[in-house]
Amino acid sequence: MKPATGIVEPPDIEPESATRSQGDQWFAEHAEVLRLADAASRARTAFTPYLESPRAHLHPVGAKARGQEWFAAVRNSALSGTAPDDAELFLPDEISPFTQEPLGVRYARPTPEQIFSAIGNAAPSWAAASPQERVGVCLEALDRLHQDVFANAYATMHTTGQPFIMAFAGSGANSLDRGLEAVVYAMRAMADVAPAAEFRRSFGAAEVTLDKRYQIRPRGVGVVIACGSYPAWNAYPAIFANLATGNPVVVKPHPATVLPVARAVQIVRAVLAEAGHDPNLVIMAVDTTDEPIANALIDHPATAIVDFTGSPQYGQELEQRFDRLVFTETAGTNAVILESARDLDAVLVALARSLCLFSGQMCTTPQNVFVPPVVQTPTGPVPYAQVRRRLLAEIDRVATDPRIAAATCGAVHSQTTIAALDALAESSQLSQRDAAHSPEHVLRQHTAYEHPDFPRARTCTPLVLESAARDDLHRAERFGPVSFLIPVQDRDEALALAAADAAACGAIASYCYTTDLSYADAVESAFFAAGASIGFNLVRQAPLNFTAAFSDYHVTGLNPAGNACLTDLAFVASRFRIVQSKTERVGAEA
Amino acid sequence: MKPATGIVEPPDIEPESATRSQGDQWFAEHAEVLRLADAASRARTAFTPYLESPRAHLHPVGAKARGQEWFAAVRNSALSGTAPDDAELFLPDEISPFTQEPLGVRYARPTPEQIFSAIGNAAPSWAAASPQERVGVCLEALDRLHQDVFANAYATMHTTGQPFIMAFAGSGANSLDRGLEAVVYAMRAMADVAPAAEFRRSFGAAEVTLDKRYQIRPRGVGVVIACGSYPAWNAYPAIFANLATGNPVVVKPHPATVLPVARAVQIVRAVLAEAGHDPNLVIMAVDTTDEPIANALIDHPATAIVDFTGSPQYGQELEQRFDRLVFTETAGTNAVILESARDLDAVLVALARSLCLFSGQMCTTPQNVFVPPVVQTPTGPVPYAQVRRRLLAEIDRVATDPRIAAATCGAVHSQTTIAALDALAESSQLSQRDAAHSPEHVLRQHTAYEHPDFPRARTCTPLVLESAARDDLHRAERFGPVSFLIPVQDRDEALALAAADAAACGAIASYCYTTDLSYADAVESAFFAAGASIGFNLVRQAPLNFTAAFSDYHVTGLNPAGNACLTDLAFVASRFRIVQSKTERVGAEA
Repeated sequence: MKPATGIVEPPDIEPESATRSQGDQWFAEHAEVLRLADAASRARTAFTPYLESPRAHLHPVGAKARGQEWFAAVRNSALSGTAPDDAELFLPDEISPFTQEPLGVRYARPTPEQIFSAIGNAAPSWAAASPQERVGVCLEALDRLHQDVFANAYATMHTTGQPFIMAFAGSGANSLDRGLEAVVYAMRAMADVAPAAEFRRSFGAAEVTLDKRYQIRPRGVGVVIACGSYPAWNAYPAIFANLATGNPVVVKPHPATVLPVARAVQIVRAVLAEAGHDPNLVIMAVDTTDEPIANALIDHPATAIVDFTGSPQYGQELEQRFDRLVFTETAGTNAVILESARDLDAVLVALARSLCLFSGQMCTTPQNVFVPPVVQTPTGPVPYAQVRRRLLAEIDRVATDPRIAAATCGAVHSQTTIAALDALAESSQLSQRDAAHSPEHVLRQHTAYEHPDFPRARTCTPLVLESAARDDLHRAERFGPVSFLIPVQDRDEALALAAADAAACGAIASYCYTTDLSYADAVESAFFAAGASIGFNLVRQAPLNFTAAFSDYHVTGLNPAGNACLTDLAFVASRFRIVQSKTERVGAEA
Repeated sequence: MKPATGIVEPPDIEPESATRSQGDQWFAEHAEVLRLADAASRARTAFTPYLESPRAHLHPVGAKARGQEWFAAVRNSALSGTAPDDAELFLPDEISPFTQEPLGVRYARPTPEQIFSAIGNAAPSWAAASPQERVGVCLEALDRLHQDVFANAYATMHTTGQPFIMAFAGSGANSLDRGLEAVVYAMRAMADVAPAAEFRRSFGAAEVTLDKRYQIRPRGVGVVIACGSYPAWNAYPAIFANLATGNPVVVKPHPATVLPVARAVQIVRAVLAEAGHDPNLVIMAVDTTDEPIANALIDHPATAIVDFTGSPQYGQELEQRFDRLVFTETAGTNAVILESARDLDAVLVALARSLCLFSGQMCTTPQNVFVPPVVQTPTGPVPYAQVRRRLLAEIDRVATDPRIAAATCGAVHSQTTIAALDALAESSQLSQRDAAHSPEHVLRQHTAYEHPDFPRARTCTPLVLESAARDDLHRAERFGPVSFLIPVQDRDEALALAAADAAACGAIASYCYTTDLSYADAVESAFFAAGASIGFNLVRQAPLNFTAAFSDYHVTGLNPAGNACLTDLAFVASRFRIVQSKTERVGAEA
C-alpha cells in the first residue's frame, strides 16, 4: 500500500496486452470521438465527427468519383457479403425514382432458416465479448460507413428519391450521428453496470466477503425493419444499439430501397470479420411486397427485439407484440401554428421550402398549418387571405424553378404516393361543389416539375388543400407533398386543435411562429402536456425540420407517432439484461 | 467575466430562494444519503442508511413500545388517510397467521372511479414538479417509513406470517434499501436529461442559436400490485420509481396483507401533503379474493404502468398486456448444486436454515437440491445417502426446537399453502407404492411446530421430497416449505438439469457449493447463458438467500421468473419520456 502523501496520483495504466482484441484497439482509436459525442449528448450541444458537405476539397481526392464508380459498377451486378453464403440470389424491384430504370442489383435472399441458423452460430462469442470490444467494433463500422458516404449517397438517392445533397448529408452524416448517438447511450447504460465488486459486511458475528461478478447479457436477435424513404436514419441507431449490447441483427429493408441498406450491411459485416467475429451477426433479409418476410422474422423464437420505421398500421400491429421488445417510429400530423412573426416573408420562405423538401416525404415535414384571421407582424396585421396567397407564391417559387425544385424536392419514392395525392385532390375538388358536406378546397394542385438532370424523374410539387378546423381529412398522416391550410377563429383555437391532434393523431415535429412570449409559453405547455415537442420561430435553421443528434430527442413516445425515442436511455437500457455471480470467500481469505 | 487566474474557483452557490419547495429542502437534507447510495449502487458495495437491528439502544427511546402501541390501537379501528375522503369503509379478511384472529382494521375502499378522478386532479402539479423536488419528497417519505419501522414490523408480521426479526429487517431496512435504490436509479436516469441547452451551429451562411428546453414527462398512472408474503420488497421500489418519475400510483395489496401497505401509503400521503402536493398521488385500493379489482385498475385508460409481484399465472397474463409497461416478479424453481464443500456441516446448516426460513415463502428460497452420488469434502467423499440424512437432521434441529423454529420459520401466510403441501405429500406417498409411475418419495413430512408465543399460530416445518432427475414435479414453483432432493448421476448432470430448469422454469436465486474452481467456472457460464444469477459457497452469509440492495441485481428478466430487475436502468428509464422545445434566437440575439 502506498503512503498517503496527499498527492493525487494517476491511476495505474493497464499494460497493453498482446491479446488485446481488434475491437479493443478500435475502441482506443475512437475514444476521443466517443468522449466528445458523449459530452455533446449530455450537454445537448451541436456535434458531429462526420462531414455534412460533399464539397470535394473536404474529402480525400477522388472520393466522389469512387462513389460514382461504385454505383455505376454495382448496377446489374450481384452485391455479395450481406448474408450467409448458402443463400440464393434474388433481384428485387428496385427502380430509381430519378431515371425510372431498374437498378438491376441482385442480393442474397436467405431464408429465415438460413438466417437464424447462421445467427445461432455467431451469437455466443459476440455475447461473450466485452461491451468495450463491441463498442469498438461499432465505432469502427461507423467510421467505415463515413468513408463510404458518397457511395451511400448515390445508392440512397436512386432508391429513395432523395435529392443528392439530402442523400449525402441527411442519410450520411446526420444518420451516422444518430448511429453514433445510439452507441454512446448503449455504452453509457452498459458502463453503469460494474463488472465486479468486493462486498463486505457482517452477518451476525461473521465478517463476510463476497466476490461479485456482473455480466451484461443480450436479449436475443434484433429485427430491424427500415423504411423506404429514409432508411439510414432509424436503421443505424437500431443496428448499433443492438450490436453494442450484444444482440445479433437481421436488417430487412423496404423492397424498393435495398441497395443503401445492403451496402451498409456489407461494410458492417466486413468490419465484424476483420475484428475476428462472425459476420453473420448482421444479416440482411430481402423480400417483396407480395411475399413479405417481416412477420416470419419477428415470429422466430430467437427474435427478442424489433425496431420498425414505417406505416402507422403495421407499427401499431407490432406494438401489440407483447412478447417482443418493440421500438417504433411511424408518422404524425405535424402542425404549424402561424400566430405572429418578426419577418413574415422569412417564415413563409422557410415554411414553403420545408413543404417542398424531399417532396414532403420526411417524418418531420409539417402537414397542418393553422392560421388565425390575422397574423401579427411589426408592420401590422396580415389577413389570412394574404398569408395564404404569399405562402402559395413561395411554394411556386421553389416549384417553378427546375434547379431549385430539383435540389429541394428530389423525386417521389413511390408511385403510390402520387396516386394518393391524385385521389385526395380529386375528392376535394368534388367536395368543393358540395361544400356543405366536406369543406376542403384545392389551393394548389400538385404537379410534376421537369428535373434538369433526370427528365424521366418521378417528381411532384406540393398539393395544398384548405381544410376546415373541424374537418377530419387532415387528422391523419397524408404521406408525401400534401399540406393543409386551416383557417381558425383565433390563436387559442389554433393551439387547442393542434395540441389535441398531436395527442390523438401523433406528432413527430411541431412548429409555432410567434413573437408573443406569453403565447409561446402557453403553446409549449399545451404541447408538452400533449406529449409532443415543439420548435419556435425556426427560420434561419434551414430546413426548419432538421433535427440534430446529440441535441434533439426525436419522437417522444408519448403520442401515436411511435413508442421510441432517438436516443434516450430507454432506447438502449432494455436491450440487455444483467446476470451476476457472488462467491463467498472462505474464512481465512475474507 | 472573471479574469483567468489559473485558479479553479468553486462554482457559484445559488442563493437560497424564499420559494424553495419543501421537496427541494428535503432533497438538500437527504443529499448525503442519496450520494452515498448512488456511489454504492455504482460500486455494488454494501450500504444502508437504515437500521437492520431492532435492538432498543439503537433506536429512539420507546420506539419499539410505540410500534406495539400503534398496532394494538389500530386493531378493530378504522385506518384513515389511504384514499380519497369520499370512499366507503371496508373490512377485509385480514387474519393474523400467528393468532389466527381477525385484525379487524377497516380501510377506505375507493371505487376505480373515485381513484382515477382523484388522481386526475392530483397528477398535473406533480408532473410539473422538478425531478429534484419529487426525489426530495421520496427521500423524506423513505425516512419517515424508517422512523415507523417497528409499527411496520408488527403490521407485517401479523399479516404475512414473517417472524418478527424478518418483518423488522427484511421488510424494514432491506426493503427500504430497495426503495432508496429505485430512487437513486430514477434520479440517475432523469439527471441524464439536461434541462436546457444552447445549441449553436451554422446552416449555410447563417449562424443560428437555438435555446432548447427539455422536460421529463410521466407516462401515466402506475398500478402496483403487492404480494401477500413480502409486500414491501417489491412495492417500495415500484411506488418510489413511479413517484420520482412523476407518475401517480395506485397500490393494491393482497387482500390478506393490507395493513403494512396501508400504513406505508398513509405515511407517503402525509409526506406528499406536507410537501404541498395532493396526497391522492398515492391511493390504496383494496379488494377481496372473490371480487378482485386489479383488472379494473389496470384496464383504466389512465393506467400506463403495472408493477406486479405474485403468481406466475397472473404475471404471465400481465406480461401480455402490450398496451401497458409491465414489470413482474413471479417465482422460480431455485436450484442448489451440492458438488463439494470445504465444510459440509456448515453448508448443510446454512441450507437447512434457508429451507426453514419464513417457512420457504421467500422468492429466493432454494427448492431443488441436486446432489451427485458423492459430495467431495476435505475428509473424503460423502455419499448421497449420508448427505441426505445429515441435511434432514439439520432441518429437524431447527424444526424441533420451538424457539429456533419460531425465530426462523415464523408462520404460514395462507392455509392454501399448507393444503397444497398436504396434497403434494399425499400424492407422493401414493406414488411411493407405485414407483414405476411417479418416483417421488417423502423424505420428511411437513408438520406444525408449537410456537412458544402464539399457540394458535399456523406453522409448518419443511416437507422434503426425493425426486428423480427426470421427474416433472419439481419443475414448477412449489410455494411454501417444500423442497426436492434430487440425486443425479454426476455433477455434469446436476449442472445440465439445474441450468435447463432455470431457463425453462425460471430462477430468482440459484446456489452452488463447490471447491473446484473449474467446475465453478462451468456453473457460472451455464447459468449466465441460461439467463440466471448464481451464488457460490454461501455459508456465513446468513441467510444464504439474502440479497443486498445496491449490490445484488434481483431477478434477471431473462428467464420466466419475471421480466424486471431490482434495480437497473431498465427498471426506471421507460417510466418517463422526454419532450422538448427549441426556439430560434432572432439575428441580433443569436
